[in-house]
Amino acid sequence: MQVVVPFAAESPKTRLESVLSFSEREALARAMLGDVLEAILETGHEPTVVSTARLSPESESDPVTGHADIGTLVDRGVTIEVDDRPLTDAVNTRLTAANGPVAVVMADLALATPDALTKLFATTADVAIAPGLGGGTNALLASHPEFRVDYHGASYLDHCRIAGEIDASLETVDSFRLATDVDEPTDLVELLVHGSERQRALSTLLAFGFDLETTAGRTDLRRVK
Amino acid sequence: MQVVVPFAAESPKTRLESVLSFSEREALARAMLGDVLEAILETGHEPTVVSTARLSPESESDPVTGHADIGTLVDRGVTIEVDDRPLTDAVNTRLTAANGPVAVVMADLALATPDALTKLFATTADVAIAPGLGGGTNALLASHPEFRVDYHGASYLDHCRIAGEIDASLETVDSFRLATDVDEPTDLVELLVHGSERQRALSTLLAFGFDLETTAGRTDLRRVK
Repeated sequence: MQVVVPFAAESPKTRLESVLSFSEREALARAMLGDVLEAILETGHEPTVVSTARLSPESESDPVTGHADIGTLVDRGVTIEVDDRPLTDAVNTRLTAANGPVAVVMADLALATPDALTKLFATTADVAIAPGLGGGTNALLASHPEFRVDYHGASYLDHCRIAGEIDASLETVDSFRLATDVDEPTDLVELLVHGSERQRALSTLLAFGFDLETTAGRTDLRRVK
Repeated sequence: MQVVVPFAAESPKTRLESVLSFSEREALARAMLGDVLEAILETGHEPTVVSTARLSPESESDPVTGHADIGTLVDRGVTIEVDDRPLTDAVNTRLTAANGPVAVVMADLALATPDALTKLFATTADVAIAPGLGGGTNALLASHPEFRVDYHGASYLDHCRIAGEIDASLETVDSFRLATDVDEPTDLVELLVHGSERQRALSTLLAFGFDLETTAGRTDLRRVK
Protein backbone atom coordinates (compact mmCIF):
# COMPACT_ATOMS: atom_id res chain seq x y z
CA MET A 1 0.00 0.00 0.00
CA GLN A 2 1.26 3.42 -1.02
CA VAL A 3 0.60 6.28 1.42
CA VAL A 4 0.56 9.79 -0.07
CA VAL A 5 0.65 12.92 2.08
CA PRO A 6 -0.06 16.09 0.06
CA PHE A 7 1.54 19.21 1.52
CA ALA A 8 0.91 22.84 0.55
CA ALA A 9 4.34 24.27 1.26
CA GLU A 10 3.82 27.78 -0.04
CA SER A 11 0.59 29.09 1.49
CA PRO A 12 0.53 27.40 4.85
CA LYS A 13 -2.72 27.50 6.81
CA THR A 14 -4.06 30.85 5.61
CA ARG A 15 -7.24 30.53 7.69
CA LEU A 16 -5.09 30.78 10.82
CA GLU A 17 -3.74 34.21 9.90
CA SER A 18 -5.92 35.93 12.52
CA VAL A 19 -3.94 34.21 15.27
CA LEU A 20 -0.57 33.26 13.77
CA SER A 21 2.07 35.08 11.71
CA PHE A 22 3.28 33.67 8.39
CA SER A 23 6.41 32.13 9.86
CA GLU A 24 4.41 30.66 12.75
CA ARG A 25 1.91 29.13 10.34
CA GLU A 26 4.79 27.73 8.34
CA ALA A 27 6.33 26.22 11.48
CA LEU A 28 3.00 24.76 12.65
CA ALA A 29 2.22 23.29 9.20
CA ARG A 30 5.64 21.67 9.10
CA ALA A 31 5.25 20.39 12.67
CA MET A 32 1.90 18.81 11.80
CA LEU A 33 3.39 17.23 8.68
CA GLY A 34 6.16 15.75 10.81
CA ASP A 35 3.63 14.30 13.27
CA VAL A 36 1.48 12.81 10.50
CA LEU A 37 4.55 11.23 8.87
CA GLU A 38 5.73 9.84 12.19
CA ALA A 39 2.28 8.34 12.89
CA ILE A 40 2.24 6.71 9.43
CA LEU A 41 5.76 5.32 9.92
CA GLU A 42 4.56 3.80 13.20
CA THR A 43 1.82 1.89 11.34
CA GLY A 44 4.58 0.21 9.32
CA HIS A 45 4.13 2.16 6.07
CA GLU A 46 6.60 4.47 4.33
CA PRO A 47 4.78 7.61 3.22
CA THR A 48 5.48 9.83 0.23
CA VAL A 49 5.08 13.56 0.77
CA VAL A 50 3.79 15.30 -2.35
CA SER A 51 4.80 18.89 -1.69
CA THR A 52 3.95 21.93 -3.81
CA ALA A 53 7.50 23.19 -3.31
CA ARG A 54 10.89 21.91 -2.26
CA LEU A 55 11.12 21.11 1.46
CA SER A 56 14.57 21.97 2.71
CA PRO A 57 15.53 19.04 4.89
CA GLU A 58 17.33 20.71 7.75
CA SER A 59 19.83 18.58 9.55
CA GLU A 60 19.30 20.29 12.88
CA SER A 61 16.40 19.88 15.24
CA ASP A 62 13.61 22.45 15.35
CA PRO A 63 14.72 25.64 17.13
CA VAL A 64 11.30 26.06 18.79
CA THR A 65 10.50 22.58 20.02
CA GLY A 66 13.73 20.64 19.76
CA HIS A 67 12.07 17.93 17.67
CA ALA A 68 13.97 16.18 14.91
CA ASP A 69 13.29 17.73 11.54
CA ILE A 70 11.58 16.18 8.56
CA GLY A 71 15.03 15.55 7.08
CA THR A 72 15.57 12.83 9.66
CA LEU A 73 12.29 11.20 8.65
CA VAL A 74 13.68 10.73 5.13
CA ASP A 75 16.32 8.52 6.70
CA ARG A 76 13.50 6.44 8.16
CA GLY A 77 11.72 5.80 4.86
CA VAL A 78 9.83 8.99 3.97
CA THR A 79 10.07 10.04 0.32
CA ILE A 80 9.57 13.66 -0.70
CA GLU A 81 8.32 14.54 -4.20
CA VAL A 82 7.64 18.03 -5.52
CA ASP A 83 4.48 18.56 -7.59
CA ASP A 84 3.18 22.08 -7.97
CA ARG A 85 -0.14 21.15 -9.55
CA PRO A 86 -3.43 21.56 -7.67
CA LEU A 87 -4.16 18.94 -4.99
CA THR A 88 -6.73 16.99 -7.02
CA ASP A 89 -4.44 16.65 -10.06
CA ALA A 90 -1.39 15.72 -8.02
CA VAL A 91 -3.29 12.96 -6.18
CA ASN A 92 -5.04 11.62 -9.29
CA THR A 93 -1.71 11.27 -11.06
CA ARG A 94 -0.60 8.94 -8.24
CA LEU A 95 -3.92 7.03 -8.28
CA THR A 96 -3.63 6.52 -12.05
CA ALA A 97 -0.05 5.28 -11.83
CA ALA A 98 -0.61 2.96 -8.86
CA ASN A 99 -0.63 -0.82 -9.12
CA GLY A 100 -2.43 -1.36 -5.83
CA PRO A 101 -4.17 0.42 -2.97
CA VAL A 102 -3.28 4.06 -2.32
CA ALA A 103 -3.99 5.91 0.91
CA VAL A 104 -4.11 9.71 0.90
CA VAL A 105 -3.66 11.37 4.28
CA MET A 106 -3.83 15.12 4.74
CA ALA A 107 -0.79 16.76 6.33
CA ASP A 108 -2.78 18.76 8.90
CA LEU A 109 -4.29 15.86 10.85
CA ALA A 110 -2.47 16.90 13.99
CA LEU A 111 -4.41 14.44 16.16
CA ALA A 112 -3.80 11.42 13.93
CA THR A 113 -2.40 8.47 15.85
CA PRO A 114 -1.14 5.12 14.56
CA ASP A 115 -4.32 3.51 15.98
CA ALA A 116 -6.62 5.93 14.18
CA LEU A 117 -4.72 5.52 10.91
CA THR A 118 -4.79 1.76 11.28
CA LYS A 119 -8.60 1.91 11.40
CA LEU A 120 -8.42 3.37 7.88
CA PHE A 121 -5.54 1.24 6.57
CA ALA A 122 -7.28 -1.97 7.76
CA THR A 123 -10.52 -1.35 5.87
CA THR A 124 -11.38 -3.80 3.09
CA ALA A 125 -13.88 -1.78 1.06
CA ASP A 126 -12.95 -0.60 -2.46
CA VAL A 127 -12.96 2.95 -1.13
CA ALA A 128 -12.73 3.97 2.53
CA ILE A 129 -13.06 7.57 3.64
CA ALA A 130 -12.33 9.31 6.92
CA PRO A 131 -14.45 12.45 6.65
CA GLY A 132 -13.34 15.81 7.97
CA LEU A 133 -15.50 18.34 9.74
CA GLY A 134 -17.60 20.35 7.32
CA GLY A 135 -17.89 17.70 4.61
CA GLY A 136 -14.22 17.35 3.73
CA THR A 137 -12.14 14.24 3.09
CA ASN A 138 -9.28 14.04 5.55
CA ALA A 139 -7.98 10.62 4.64
CA LEU A 140 -8.97 7.90 2.23
CA LEU A 141 -7.89 4.49 1.04
CA ALA A 142 -8.59 3.70 -2.60
CA SER A 143 -8.31 0.06 -3.57
CA HIS A 144 -10.43 0.33 -6.72
CA PRO A 145 -8.28 1.13 -9.80
CA GLU A 146 -10.82 3.54 -11.29
CA PHE A 147 -11.36 5.72 -8.24
CA ARG A 148 -10.29 9.34 -8.65
CA VAL A 149 -10.50 12.24 -6.18
CA ASP A 150 -12.11 15.67 -6.40
CA TYR A 151 -11.13 17.79 -3.43
CA HIS A 152 -13.09 20.86 -4.42
CA GLY A 153 -16.15 21.64 -2.29
CA ALA A 154 -17.89 19.08 -0.08
CA SER A 155 -15.45 16.41 -1.13
CA TYR A 156 -16.81 13.74 1.19
CA LEU A 157 -20.12 13.68 -0.63
CA ASP A 158 -18.37 13.91 -4.02
CA HIS A 159 -16.14 10.97 -3.16
CA CYS A 160 -19.16 8.92 -2.05
CA ARG A 161 -20.81 9.74 -5.39
CA ILE A 162 -17.67 8.91 -7.41
CA ALA A 163 -17.40 5.54 -5.61
CA GLY A 164 -21.04 4.85 -6.49
CA GLU A 165 -20.47 5.71 -10.14
CA ILE A 166 -17.77 3.07 -10.50
CA ASP A 167 -19.70 0.51 -8.39
CA ALA A 168 -17.04 0.56 -5.72
CA SER A 169 -17.95 -0.59 -2.22
CA LEU A 170 -17.65 2.24 0.27
CA GLU A 171 -16.83 2.47 3.95
CA THR A 172 -16.77 5.54 6.18
CA VAL A 173 -14.23 5.48 8.99
CA ASP A 174 -15.66 6.90 12.21
CA SER A 175 -12.73 8.69 13.85
CA PHE A 176 -12.72 11.99 15.70
CA ARG A 177 -8.92 12.10 15.44
CA LEU A 178 -8.98 11.76 11.66
CA ALA A 179 -11.96 14.15 11.37
CA THR A 180 -10.00 16.96 13.00
CA ASP A 181 -7.89 18.85 10.47
CA VAL A 182 -6.31 22.06 11.70
CA ASP A 183 -7.61 24.89 9.54
CA GLU A 184 -9.20 27.47 11.82
CA PRO A 185 -8.49 28.87 15.28
CA THR A 186 -11.16 26.64 16.88
CA ASP A 187 -9.23 23.62 15.59
CA LEU A 188 -6.28 24.73 17.71
CA VAL A 189 -8.51 24.14 20.75
CA GLU A 190 -8.81 20.48 19.72
CA LEU A 191 -5.05 20.27 19.43
CA LEU A 192 -4.59 21.79 22.89
CA VAL A 193 -7.17 19.42 24.43
CA HIS A 194 -6.26 16.17 22.66
CA GLY A 195 -2.69 16.61 21.40
CA SER A 196 0.33 14.94 22.89
CA GLU A 197 3.23 16.95 24.24
CA ARG A 198 5.53 14.34 22.75
CA GLN A 199 4.43 15.57 19.33
CA ARG A 200 5.69 18.47 17.28
CA ALA A 201 2.40 20.29 16.69
CA LEU A 202 1.28 20.65 20.30
CA SER A 203 4.76 21.56 21.52
CA THR A 204 5.02 24.17 18.75
CA LEU A 205 1.70 25.69 19.78
CA LEU A 206 2.67 25.70 23.45
CA ALA A 207 6.02 27.29 22.57
CA PHE A 208 4.10 30.06 20.77
CA GLY A 209 2.33 30.76 24.07
CA PHE A 210 -1.09 29.28 23.39
CA ASP A 211 -3.20 27.82 26.13
CA LEU A 212 -6.80 26.94 26.88
CA GLU A 213 -9.10 29.42 28.56
CA THR A 214 -12.25 28.10 30.17
CA THR A 215 -14.79 30.73 31.04
CA ALA A 216 -18.58 30.70 31.20
CA GLY A 217 -18.70 27.04 30.33
CA ARG A 218 -16.85 27.36 27.02
CA THR A 219 -13.32 26.47 26.07
CA ASP A 220 -11.43 29.06 24.07
CA LEU A 221 -7.99 29.76 22.81
CA ARG A 222 -5.73 32.17 24.69
CA ARG A 223 -2.27 33.43 23.92
CA VAL A 224 -0.15 34.26 26.90
CA LYS A 225 2.94 35.61 25.17
CA MET B 1 -25.68 -1.29 32.53
CA GLN B 2 -27.85 1.75 33.03
CA VAL B 3 -27.96 4.30 30.20
CA VAL B 4 -28.96 7.83 31.16
CA VAL B 5 -29.89 10.48 28.57
CA PRO B 6 -30.14 13.98 30.09
CA PHE B 7 -32.52 16.27 28.22
CA ALA B 8 -32.98 20.03 28.65
CA ALA B 9 -36.66 20.30 27.80
CA GLU B 10 -37.17 23.96 28.56
CA SER B 11 -34.42 25.89 26.78
CA PRO B 12 -33.80 23.82 23.70
CA LYS B 13 -30.67 24.56 21.68
CA THR B 14 -30.37 28.28 22.34
CA ARG B 15 -27.18 28.58 20.27
CA LEU B 16 -29.24 27.74 17.19
CA GLU B 17 -31.52 30.75 17.62
CA SER B 18 -29.87 32.62 14.75
CA VAL B 19 -31.22 30.02 12.30
CA LEU B 20 -34.22 28.37 14.01
CA SER B 21 -37.31 29.65 15.83
CA PHE B 22 -38.15 28.46 19.35
CA SER B 23 -40.66 25.90 18.17
CA GLU B 24 -38.27 24.65 15.49
CA ARG B 25 -35.49 24.27 18.05
CA GLU B 26 -37.93 22.42 20.30
CA ALA B 27 -38.89 20.08 17.43
CA LEU B 28 -35.25 19.46 16.42
CA ALA B 29 -34.18 18.82 20.02
CA ARG B 30 -36.99 16.31 20.44
CA ALA B 31 -36.18 14.69 17.10
CA MET B 32 -32.52 14.27 18.11
CA LEU B 33 -33.59 12.81 21.46
CA GLY B 34 -35.79 10.32 19.62
CA ASP B 35 -32.90 9.29 17.36
CA VAL B 36 -30.48 8.89 20.27
CA LEU B 37 -33.00 6.77 22.19
CA GLU B 38 -33.67 4.63 19.13
CA ALA B 39 -29.92 4.09 18.58
CA ILE B 40 -29.49 3.07 22.25
CA LEU B 41 -32.46 0.67 22.04
CA GLU B 42 -30.82 -0.93 19.00
CA THR B 43 -27.70 -1.67 21.07
CA GLY B 44 -29.92 -3.73 23.35
CA HIS B 45 -30.10 -1.30 26.27
CA GLU B 46 -33.17 0.45 27.69
CA PRO B 47 -32.32 4.10 28.31
CA THR B 48 -33.68 6.44 30.95
CA VAL B 49 -34.34 10.03 29.88
CA VAL B 50 -33.67 12.50 32.67
CA SER B 51 -35.64 15.52 31.52
CA THR B 52 -35.71 18.94 33.13
CA ALA B 53 -39.49 19.06 32.56
CA ARG B 54 -42.33 16.72 31.77
CA LEU B 55 -42.26 15.37 28.21
CA SER B 56 -45.81 15.04 26.94
CA PRO B 57 -45.87 11.65 25.24
CA GLU B 58 -47.98 12.31 22.21
CA SER B 59 -49.74 9.33 20.76
CA GLU B 60 -49.64 10.62 17.23
CA SER B 61 -46.72 10.71 14.86
CA ASP B 62 -44.78 13.91 14.32
CA PRO B 63 -46.65 16.37 12.11
CA VAL B 64 -43.47 17.50 10.36
CA THR B 65 -41.70 14.23 9.63
CA GLY B 66 -44.28 11.50 10.26
CA HIS B 67 -41.94 9.73 12.69
CA ALA B 68 -43.33 7.93 15.71
CA ASP B 69 -43.22 10.07 18.82
CA ILE B 70 -41.16 9.52 21.94
CA GLY B 71 -44.35 8.16 23.55
CA THR B 72 -44.02 5.03 21.41
CA LEU B 73 -40.42 4.60 22.56
CA VAL B 74 -41.71 4.28 26.14
CA ASP B 75 -43.58 1.19 24.99
CA ARG B 76 -40.24 -0.21 23.78
CA GLY B 77 -38.44 0.20 27.09
CA VAL B 78 -37.53 3.88 27.46
CA THR B 79 -38.14 5.34 30.94
CA ILE B 80 -38.70 9.07 31.39
CA GLU B 81 -37.83 10.76 34.70
CA VAL B 82 -38.20 14.44 35.49
CA ASP B 83 -35.37 16.14 37.37
CA ASP B 84 -35.13 19.91 37.21
CA ARG B 85 -31.71 20.19 38.84
CA PRO B 86 -28.64 21.24 36.86
CA LEU B 87 -27.13 18.56 34.60
CA THR B 88 -24.16 17.76 36.83
CA ASP B 89 -26.33 17.23 39.94
CA ALA B 90 -28.94 15.18 38.10
CA VAL B 91 -26.29 12.85 36.66
CA ASN B 92 -24.30 12.53 39.89
CA THR B 93 -27.45 11.49 41.76
CA ARG B 94 -27.77 8.57 39.35
CA LEU B 95 -24.07 7.71 39.59
CA THR B 96 -24.28 7.70 43.41
CA ALA B 97 -27.35 5.47 43.45
CA ALA B 98 -26.10 2.99 40.84
CA ASN B 99 -25.01 -0.57 41.63
CA GLY B 100 -23.08 -1.02 38.41
CA PRO B 101 -21.85 0.73 35.30
CA VAL B 102 -23.71 3.83 34.15
CA ALA B 103 -23.49 5.33 30.67
CA VAL B 104 -24.44 8.96 30.14
CA VAL B 105 -25.26 9.90 26.55
CA MET B 106 -26.16 13.45 25.52
CA ALA B 107 -29.50 13.89 23.77
CA ASP B 108 -28.12 15.96 20.90
CA LEU B 109 -25.79 13.38 19.36
CA ALA B 110 -27.77 13.38 16.14
CA LEU B 111 -25.15 11.27 14.31
CA ALA B 112 -24.94 8.58 16.99
CA THR B 113 -25.39 5.10 15.55
CA PRO B 114 -25.70 1.75 17.34
CA ASP B 115 -22.16 0.92 16.11
CA ALA B 116 -20.67 4.13 17.48
CA LEU B 117 -22.46 3.69 20.83
CA THR B 118 -21.32 0.08 21.02
CA LYS B 119 -17.70 1.30 20.79
CA LEU B 120 -18.37 3.15 24.06
CA PHE B 121 -20.55 0.49 25.72
CA ALA B 122 -17.96 -2.23 24.99
CA THR B 123 -15.06 -0.44 26.71
CA THR B 124 -13.62 -2.09 29.77
CA ALA B 125 -11.82 0.82 31.45
CA ASP B 126 -13.12 2.18 34.76
CA VAL B 127 -14.09 5.35 32.94
CA ALA B 128 -14.52 5.72 29.17
CA ILE B 129 -15.19 9.06 27.54
CA ALA B 130 -16.30 10.00 24.05
CA PRO B 131 -15.17 13.65 23.81
CA GLY B 132 -17.16 16.30 22.03
CA LEU B 133 -15.76 19.06 19.87
CA GLY B 134 -14.37 21.92 21.92
CA GLY B 135 -13.41 19.91 24.97
CA GLY B 136 -16.84 18.65 26.01
CA THR B 137 -17.97 15.21 27.12
CA ASN B 138 -20.60 13.84 24.77
CA ALA B 139 -20.90 10.37 26.21
CA LEU B 140 -19.23 8.42 28.97
CA LEU B 141 -19.34 5.07 30.67
CA ALA B 142 -18.52 5.06 34.36
CA SER B 143 -17.79 1.65 35.87
CA HIS B 144 -15.91 2.98 38.90
CA PRO B 145 -18.26 3.57 41.89
CA GLU B 146 -16.53 6.79 42.96
CA PHE B 147 -16.54 8.57 39.59
CA ARG B 148 -18.61 11.76 39.48
CA VAL B 149 -19.18 14.20 36.63
CA ASP B 150 -18.63 17.92 36.30
CA TYR B 151 -20.08 19.23 33.06
CA HIS B 152 -19.08 22.82 33.55
CA GLY B 153 -16.34 24.13 31.25
CA ALA B 154 -13.89 21.88 29.40
CA SER B 155 -15.51 18.82 30.91
CA TYR B 156 -13.39 16.32 28.98
CA LEU B 157 -10.23 17.48 30.72
CA ASP B 158 -12.06 17.70 34.07
CA HIS B 159 -13.34 14.14 33.68
CA CYS B 160 -9.84 12.91 32.85
CA ARG B 161 -8.57 14.64 35.98
CA ILE B 162 -11.40 13.25 38.17
CA ALA B 163 -10.66 9.73 36.89
CA GLY B 164 -7.00 10.24 37.80
CA GLU B 165 -7.87 11.43 41.31
CA ILE B 166 -9.73 8.19 42.09
CA ASP B 167 -7.11 6.02 40.37
CA ALA B 168 -9.60 4.92 37.75
CA SER B 169 -8.33 3.56 34.43
CA LEU B 170 -9.36 5.80 31.56
CA GLU B 171 -10.12 5.23 27.90
CA THR B 172 -11.00 7.81 25.26
CA VAL B 173 -13.36 6.62 22.53
CA ASP B 174 -12.32 7.91 19.11
CA SER B 175 -15.61 8.54 17.29
CA PHE B 176 -16.51 11.39 14.97
CA ARG B 177 -20.18 10.46 15.28
CA LEU B 178 -20.10 10.70 19.07
CA ALA B 179 -17.95 13.85 18.95
CA THR B 180 -20.57 15.73 16.97
CA ASP B 181 -23.19 17.28 19.22
CA VAL B 182 -25.59 19.69 17.57
CA ASP B 183 -25.20 23.06 19.26
CA GLU B 184 -24.35 25.62 16.60
CA PRO B 185 -25.34 26.25 12.98
CA THR B 186 -22.12 24.66 11.67
CA ASP B 187 -23.14 21.45 13.44
CA LEU B 188 -26.24 21.34 11.23
CA VAL B 189 -23.87 20.97 8.26
CA GLU B 190 -22.57 17.74 9.81
CA LEU B 191 -26.14 16.50 10.22
CA LEU B 192 -26.92 17.30 6.57
CA VAL B 193 -23.74 15.57 5.36
CA HIS B 194 -23.73 12.48 7.59
CA GLY B 195 -27.31 12.08 8.86
CA SER B 196 -29.70 9.40 7.69
CA GLU B 197 -33.03 10.31 6.12
CA ARG B 198 -34.54 7.41 8.02
CA GLN B 199 -33.89 9.36 11.20
CA ARG B 200 -35.95 12.05 12.83
CA ALA B 201 -33.34 14.81 13.07
CA LEU B 202 -32.29 14.95 9.43
CA SER B 203 -35.85 14.64 8.14
CA THR B 204 -36.89 17.45 10.52
CA LEU B 205 -34.11 19.68 9.21
CA LEU B 206 -34.97 18.89 5.58
CA ALA B 207 -38.65 19.57 6.29
CA PHE B 208 -37.62 22.99 7.64
CA GLY B 209 -36.06 23.66 4.21
CA PHE B 210 -32.37 23.35 5.06
CA ASP B 211 -29.89 22.15 2.51
CA LEU B 212 -26.15 22.23 1.81
CA GLU B 213 -24.62 24.99 -0.24
CA THR B 214 -21.19 24.40 -1.71
CA THR B 215 -19.47 27.47 -3.01
CA ALA B 216 -15.85 28.49 -3.21
CA GLY B 217 -14.72 25.20 -1.81
CA ARG B 218 -16.64 25.44 1.46
CA THR B 219 -19.81 23.75 2.59
CA ASP B 220 -22.39 25.97 4.22
CA LEU B 221 -25.93 25.86 5.43
CA ARG B 222 -28.71 27.25 3.26
CA ARG B 223 -32.43 27.55 3.92
CA VAL B 224 -34.64 27.32 0.86
CA LYS B 225 -38.04 27.96 2.46
